[in-house]
Amino acid sequence: MGRWEPNARGRLAQAAMELYVERGFEQTTVAEIARRAGLTERTFFRHFADKREVLFGGSRTLQEHLVEAVAEAPDSAAPIDAVAGALEAAGAVLQERREYSQQRQAVIAANAELRERELIKLASLAAALADALRRRGVKEPAASLAAEAGIAVFKIAFERWIGEAAQADLPRLIRESFVELKAVTAGR
Amino acid sequence: MGRWEPNARGRLAQAAMELYVERGFEQTTVAEIARRAGLTERTFFRHFADKREVLFGGSRTLQEHLVEAVAEAPDSAAPIDAVAGALEAAGAVLQERREYSQQRQAVIAANAELRERELIKLASLAAALADALRRRGVKEPAASLAAEAGIAVFKIAFERWIGEAAQADLPRLIRESFVELKAVTAGR
Repeated sequence: MGRWEPNARGRLAQAAMELYVERGFEQTTVAEIARRAGLTERTFFRHFADKREVLFGGSRTLQEHLVEAVAEAPDSAAPIDAVAGALEAAGAVLQERREYSQQRQAVIAANAELRERELIKLASLAAALADALRRRGVKEPAASLAAEAGIAVFKIAFERWIGEAAQADLPRLIRESFVELKAVTAGR
Repeated sequence: MGRWEPNARGRLAQAAMELYVERGFEQTTVAEIARRAGLTERTFFRHFADKREVLFGGSRTLQEHLVEAVAEAPDSAAPIDAVAGALEAAGAVLQERREYSQQRQAVIAANAELRERELIKLASLAAALADALRRRGVKEPAASLAAEAGIAVFKIAFERWIGEAAQADLPRLIRESFVELKAVTAGR
């Protein structure tokens, strides 16, 4: 390890996002990110495997939080409610990072490879949620259906949140979307 | 165009699938596919852009059929029922191609790039279904929720079908999975 750089990871992430927004993801180099953050390339690679990981490094933490929240849901909670509760809690964390989330979304939307990566991350989240439900004793196909439906709701609520006015509330949008999914699947 | 080759496309597709199953997708060359089919590489490229398209060329037809079926659903059909009807009809077509579908699934499962491509195709199908629902006057987020939930059901029913005994019936599994989704989202 080199000398200690206060909040190097955060500075690098912010510099990277600024450059991705200004120039596009593809046109940005690690050297430029490091320079903008006032750090070295070596420091960048101590924190991120590559410039894509700046955007997706948070996915593993998100997945761990979701799996933990499903595991800790009350025994009496129906599978869909365990999933909804976990996603609402994740939404509350994202709510604090609205500007970052908007920028990240814009960068991903502009690049086919990043859009693919995001789809893969969402598919992994659904698989991890289904697994967490099975560990609660939920049978198939209920576990996979609740997990996949939950991720679909999350994706749609997230897009509404990003697109709406600044006061939009992600946990509330997630909650409402679960209610609307229930109405939709009931055929109303 | 060269000389007429009876069912060249079908012969190439079958030869390709045999080789993908025997050796793996990555290890198979277009030259080998053409040789196995008794045709030339030039004929291969008249029918397919590359060896990946042999696996995904049917997706566009599937999407067209789904969109058409949603458009033609009775006016009285709820969005989820229009989607379910379209997917059941697609399931009936796939039912006739069970062995092909199993082989295709095994080839895709064994290759990360192909798994990503399949996720992208499923996301495109969901977007096309949502679009078809909006043209029926369905509002957001109901259109996207019905479409995404429908694709989740389809994916899960398809996996059950592939994994089950030879007499498994895909349209029935799709129908049952929609019923189970309804129970799951209702919190039962």
